[in-house]
Amino acid sequence: MELTVYLAGQIHDTWREDVKKKAKEKNLPLVFVAPQTNHERSDNIGEEILGKQPGNLYKDGAASDINNFRTQVLMQKSDIVIALFGEKYKQWNTAMDASTAIAMNKPTIIIRPESLIHPLKELSNKANVTVETVDQALDVIRYLFE
Amino acid sequence: MELTVYLAGQIHDTWREDVKKKAKEKNLPLVFVAPQTNHERSDNIGEEILGKQPGNLYKDGAASDINNFRTQVLMQKSDIVIALFGEKYKQWNTAMDASTAIAMNKPTIIIRPESLIHPLKELSNKANVTVETVDQALDVIRYLFE
Amino acid sequence: MELTVYLAGQIHDTWREDVKKKAKEKNLPLVFVAPQTNHERSDNIGEEILGKQPGNLYKDGAASDINNFRTQVLMQKSDIVIALFGEKYKQWNTAMDASTAIAMNKPTIIIRPESLIHPLKELSNKANVTVETVDQALDVIRYLFE
Amino acid sequence: MELTVYLAGQIHDTWREDVKKKAKEKNLPLVFVAPQTNHERSDNIGEEILGKQPGNLYKDGAASDINNFRTQVLMQKSDIVIALFGEKYKQWNTAMDASTAIAMNKPTIIIRPESLIHPLKELSNKANVTVETVDQALDVIRYLFE
Amino acid sequence: MELTVYLAGQIHDTWREDVKKKAKEKNLPLVFVAPQTNHERSDNIGEEILGKQPGNLYKDGAASDINNFRTQVLMQKSDIVIALFGEKYKQWNTAMDASTAIAMNKPTIIIRPESLIHPLKELSNKANVTVETVDQALDVIRYLFE
Amino acid sequence: MELTVYLAGQIHDTWREDVKKKAKEKNLPLVFVAPQTNHERSDNIGEEILGKQPGNLYKDGAASDINNFRTQVLMQKSDIVIALFGEKYKQWNTAMDASTAIAMNKPTIIIRPESLIHPLKELSNKANVTVETVDQALDVIRYLFE
Amino acid sequence: MELTVYLAGQIHDTWREDVKKKAKEKNLPLVFVAPQTNHERSDNIGEEILGKQPGNLYKDGAASDINNFRTQVLMQKSDIVIALFGEKYKQWNTAMDASTAIAMNKPTIIIRPESLIHPLKELSNKANVTVETVDQALDVIRYLFE
Amino acid sequence: MELTVYLAGQIHDTWREDVKKKAKEKNLPLVFVAPQTNHERSDNIGEEILGKQPGNLYKDGAASDINNFRTQVLMQKSDIVIALFGEKYKQWNTAMDASTAIAMNKPTIIIRPESLIHPLKELSNKANVTVETVDQALDVIRYLFE
Repeated sequence: MELTVYLAGQIHDTWREDVKKKAKEKNLPLVFVAPQTNHERSDNIGEEILGKQPGNLYKDGAASDINNFRTQVLMQKSDIVIALFGEKYKQWNTAMDASTAIAMNKPTIIIRPESLIHPLKELSNKANVTVETVDQALDVIRYLFE
Repeated sequence: MELTVYLAGQIHDTWREDVKKKAKEKNLPLVFVAPQTNHERSDNIGEEILGKQPGNLYKDGAASDINNFRTQVLMQKSDIVIALFGEKYKQWNTAMDASTAIAMNKPTIIIRPESLIHPLKELSNKANVTVETVDQALDVIRYLFE
Repeated sequence: MELTVYLAGQIHDTWREDVKKKAKEKNLPLVFVAPQTNHERSDNIGEEILGKQPGNLYKDGAASDINNFRTQVLMQKSDIVIALFGEKYKQWNTAMDASTAIAMNKPTIIIRPESLIHPLKELSNKANVTVETVDQALDVIRYLFE
Repeated sequence: MELTVYLAGQIHDTWREDVKKKAKEKNLPLVFVAPQTNHERSDNIGEEILGKQPGNLYKDGAASDINNFRTQVLMQKSDIVIALFGEKYKQWNTAMDASTAIAMNKPTIIIRPESLIHPLKELSNKANVTVETVDQALDVIRYLFE
Repeated sequence: MELTVYLAGQIHDTWREDVKKKAKEKNLPLVFVAPQTNHERSDNIGEEILGKQPGNLYKDGAASDINNFRTQVLMQKSDIVIALFGEKYKQWNTAMDASTAIAMNKPTIIIRPESLIHPLKELSNKANVTVETVDQALDVIRYLFE
Repeated sequence: MELTVYLAGQIHDTWREDVKKKAKEKNLPLVFVAPQTNHERSDNIGEEILGKQPGNLYKDGAASDINNFRTQVLMQKSDIVIALFGEKYKQWNTAMDASTAIAMNKPTIIIRPESLIHPLKELSNKANVTVETVDQALDVIRYLFE
Repeated sequence: MELTVYLAGQIHDTWREDVKKKAKEKNLPLVFVAPQTNHERSDNIGEEILGKQPGNLYKDGAASDINNFRTQVLMQKSDIVIALFGEKYKQWNTAMDASTAIAMNKPTIIIRPESLIHPLKELSNKANVTVETVDQALDVIRYLFE
Repeated sequence: MELTVYLAGQIHDTWREDVKKKAKEKNLPLVFVAPQTNHERSDNIGEEILGKQPGNLYKDGAASDINNFRTQVLMQKSDIVIALFGEKYKQWNTAMDASTAIAMNKPTIIIRPESLIHPLKELSNKANVTVETVDQALDVIRYLFE
């Protein structure tokens, strides 16, 4: 039973590569999908496809059309969602993706540092499991195959 | 990850062949489905299967039974819907298919010329992305695979 | 049993007033809701609330945000949808509203002139009933109360 | 037609009172519901009902159980959701409530300052309308009653 | 708590009057809705509203459009469905209405004579309760109010 | 694109074999599923698995548990439903299966002789297409692959 | 805003009266619904309406038809479900009602003694809130109205 | 047609091995999934992944997060649910899983000894089929393939 896992969360470091490498080491039969992780590409995709926009509001509107299209296709294909929150940034897309996944009945794991317990308490409460590390998240998924 | 794409829209030129050719050139792993594109066949399918009808209203009723059956089967199998509007014709089936796709939570791309911005504004607003060319629509889908 | 009826369709003549007047004459316990029927207000509502936009595409985008908000609230409150198509205009909003209503399992009546039988055949086929006049549409609803 | 409006967002100033006062001035037939706006009460509600917990993680877990219960009951009763983002705080509950509302097909308005255009771009894109002030949000709702 | 009850079933005798009279005697707070019970009216409604049709197939098609519209509106408004099968007639509409109600999660009671146990066994099995008389059906509903 | 087709309808002749043979001749990529067509087995399956029951009502109850289990599993796996009505028998299971399929948004074809136009008019009206012969039903499905 | 609360749970003591009395004391605008709490009536309702059955299995089958009908009607009408588990009895109906409520997205509160923490841990985890006393459950609901 | 079967129920004996062995002997094309059957692992999984918790309530909370995650993933992948109740234990997870499966429209078979007819009567009534032995449950499934 191969499962598809959507990796929601910040796109500023290489945590997704870490997840994939560790999943491979643990021999977990997982396929990973994710938002565009090239930040510049993600911000510019609207103008790159639709052409120059008349200001930042419109540039952001065009980019978000296409980023949301991507997320909707890939999340609908997923069996599990992992959402990672880090210490920096507003990360509203992570909160949005996790909340949407939960509303779609996608089993959802949140990874967040201890420092974020309080501001994430209601979202953690709605997710299935909240952990602090990538290893713990993969341990939760590995448990499926025991 | 192979995706199935429903190509809604006018059946008066060969835009679907253009989509397929370009998708192949871009090596996109897509399977395309569509309404019956032989216009005469589409108009006559009711009488061809059910026999001569007593007037155009009934001929059209019989044809639409079977065309709607086709669309329902194929759209349910699709991951993505592209709806193309051209300059001519009323194209209410295109509007119907795009609206139905959106209501079914199918990620949807509209292709329309600049001249149709105004009359399509509410439908464009509900779709995920609106573009002007087939190339742009395929660029949006290619972005999924980056 | 009072029923709420959404009146989708062109906003260029006073057909909705005709519906309301005739419903009153027939003593039907109906409440009517509808899109914004002041065409200019509907086109400008985006800029009137959000301020001047940098071009028609963006003006239309802003207006459609608010028009779609209105339609979504009011259609969710409705028990029945009547969608009227006239001889003129592209009327894609009418096709969109009727298709959305059908996808939401709202019982739907289409009113269209005989001249539109052919281009509307698939949408008519998905609606519950298609008639040619406002009187016929109200007769269909009156039948509910017999 | 009286409508119920859920007011999601930060609980650190009195913006909800502002909404209510202005809605009253505009004679809008609206009933407002909201999360617990007494911040201390919201943080302590778990321990106040369930008793002392063994640390902050557990105190937060207990509080979020009850806060999420409240939100679920009240949002299910709502016809419209307004979500206000301010300049400060992480506001993940606001993002969560707006995303959940959108996934539940609740018509949703986001209020955010210009400075948050970029980090909120994908969520704004999924909402029906995004505005910058309470007055604009109420203008959008007033448009329903025209 | 007032409940609305849809009375599906044959329209050839006055069983619905019997239900209403007995419900009144038992002081049950029920509102009843039903298909058109004037058989001739039900068969002719299509032609009466839409005009003369070119043969029985088309006359029946027109009538069923309007009868199905009626059923859909009224069943969506109902809390409970009672479906009565008698000894005569094919009663496929009764089977259709009961099956649709069950698929819509409407609590459903079937009334059928002992002679129909065998042909109705799968449908009875899917309904909540199967009884033999109107009195028993009302006893089941009265039990709600104990 | 291989499609699964559920063949609802009477189990008293070999029409399903006819469907399968003709589908093969037409090279249609279809997999067929169906209710138990051994009538005796279908009637006795409850007692054969659960043991002797205290009378026909209970024997029928036990059989219908298992027949409905079968139908639910197989219909959920199907892309299309064909429901055939013949001249004889009450065929309430056929009406139930067709109605359930329609309520589940399964594209549905009804096959019925001309003599049954009138009693099946409302159900035909809700199905996608109604035809008179197996060949016509397969022609409708073949149209999907053109 | 008046809310309807379904009180699932054992029917062997008078805890529901306690809930109602306390809700009244706290002036909470709640309407309560519940299963049949006369145990004998609940066990015999099948035979009382449908007549003597040939053994306990069939007597229980008849009773459960009618008890499940009651629960389905009343739970669909409810905004909130409270499920109380006591120290005695298997209470599978309580577990069934709570699980069904959660799957229907009904906000759900479990009341259980400390001794049942372990066996109820997975169900508690899926409910919104778990408390130990009726007073705590009502405090959770009262929090809605603050 | 290969089917996936979720085996809900007690984890104190080896009944699942019995099911798998017998399914193999009968050549049934079934894949089985199940909760964690190592009882100690199931109870400790929370602490094993998330670390030591401050008491049994919290240890159980952590374990149930992960056990419910597992069940949600695997049940969503299943075509059929078998729920076995034995003579011992409270088995509320079995009742929860069966009820959830039924609410998700998963075809469900209950296996229970004769002694549990009465306390399980309402849940049995909602399941598709109730049997007493593993062999009977597999006979029900084998019937699908006849």
